[in-house]
Amino acid sequence: MNVLIVFAHPEGKSLNAALRDTAIDELKAQGHEVRVSDLYADSWKAVVDRNDFPILAPDERLRVPSASGRALAADSLTADVKAEQEKMLWADTVILQFPLWWFTMPAILKGWVDRVFAYGFAYGVGDHNDTRWGDRYGEGTMDGKRAMLLVTTGGWEPHYSDRGINGPIDDLLFPINHGILFYPGFDVLPSFVTYQADRLSPDNFEAEAERLRDRMRSLETIRPIPYRRQNDGDYLMPSMKLRPELNHAGESGFSIHLQEQD
Amino acid sequence: MNVLIVFAHPEGKSLNAALRDTAIDELKAQGHEVRVSDLYADSWKAVVDRNDFPILAPDERLRVPSASGRALAADSLTADVKAEQEKMLWADTVILQFPLWWFTMPAILKGWVDRVFAYGFAYGVGDHNDTRWGDRYGEGTMDGKRAMLLVTTGGWEPHYSDRGINGPIDDLLFPINHGILFYPGFDVLPSFVTYQADRLSPDNFEAEAERLRDRMRSLETIRPIPYRRQNDGDYLMPSMKLRPELNHAGESGFSIHLQEQD
Repeated sequence: MNVLIVFAHPEGKSLNAALRDTAIDELKAQGHEVRVSDLYADSWKAVVDRNDFPILAPDERLRVPSASGRALAADSLTADVKAEQEKMLWADTVILQFPLWWFTMPAILKGWVDRVFAYGFAYGVGDHNDTRWGDRYGEGTMDGKRAMLLVTTGGWEPHYSDRGINGPIDDLLFPINHGILFYPGFDVLPSFVTYQADRLSPDNFEAEAERLRDRMRSLETIRPIPYRRQNDGDYLMPSMKLRPELNHAGESGFSIHLQEQD
Repeated sequence: MNVLIVFAHPEGKSLNAALRDTAIDELKAQGHEVRVSDLYADSWKAVVDRNDFPILAPDERLRVPSASGRALAADSLTADVKAEQEKMLWADTVILQFPLWWFTMPAILKGWVDRVFAYGFAYGVGDHNDTRWGDRYGEGTMDGKRAMLLVTTGGWEPHYSDRGINGPIDDLLFPINHGILFYPGFDVLPSFVTYQADRLSPDNFEAEAERLRDRMRSLETIRPIPYRRQNDGDYLMPSMKLRPELNHAGESGFSIHLQEQD
């Protein structure tokens, strides 16, 4: 299996770097191929701007979806973006690894998404017609691939629990797991989260490392988060609301987008 | 009233820019002072790295919370960060304006948060003891100030409704409203969202502009989102879980962090 790790931490001596190396070692021991996009080390350009679209006329209004779609079609995306897209196509599993900063990913990783996930590549894929709203949410360019988040937090685990003040970690990560990874077609694995990253003792680090090795060994077999696929009939067209006759009638929130468990 | 608009769109001819100018004109007509941080125009540095902390020794491990806290205490944060902090202290209301990209803010604005919200300024504020977990979630440096999001989406409104496939817009924005704005003490106003931004007709633009002018006229009076304050007794110490005897017993999700409505 080919595994791409997109790594977004500025410090080589960090817990994140140690966990990354733990994951790489275990994946290689299992015979997998591993590539790493180390965004800080590569001085990844984080911001979408006109320079991303050389074919845009100097006085033309920049509309990012249109510009990125035309650039993709003309094979004129910048070399750094093309290299990342090629890695994503090469990979069977993509791991996004980052410290949770302000309850989401660091800017440099958000900029990787903003720039690499071009129109026609990660969105604006497939047909729009009376029966389907394109290939998204379970279908798309990443169909058949797996993805997961590898996250550290400074805060305590109970603060991220179901009734914790920060909000449940799975809900905080839903915009990423569902909106960034499931959207272009990935099967999304449960996130691997290490809490209280700034206060991890050596013993606790070794326990986390072993838990991570276990996860790396089960990457191919662990069950993905059972998000409902857009085009399997659960949603009304064109409102894309969950059908009222399905469970959760009257309920709202992220959890209704999980398939019912038998 | 002093209003700071933090603006994160790369195109001066965009809908976002037109809405920004509409807001500014109305605020000035009401006699308010307005300042704008135009992140793209200012080539805002989006990425936290060692260069943000000149007092860090070259071989010292970068721990962002510690480094930013020490830099704040030593008054050695970079000039661009200090200028933004001063604007936030000057403002009575802060508006973050951005197009929703991949269900959250663009990288350049996330980088504004990552860099400006230093330890000791936006987090790590106040006492930690047996009865309080610092000044956060309703208390902190931004106490008494208001904040709101001004957002455009490419997608359709029903897709962001309670049972829409994207997830409810208020839940998607919870990590920002609750985790980034309420956390350092802002009273957070309901978000102003314009849908289908890429397909807005002139008539629909004028309707949105008028709705925005209305909102700008009610900035001082509109009721904030009634998030529960951390230190008012609703949460257990130190787990910071919502007390079981409060409503929503057994429920989870973001909505339990809203005060009960009478």
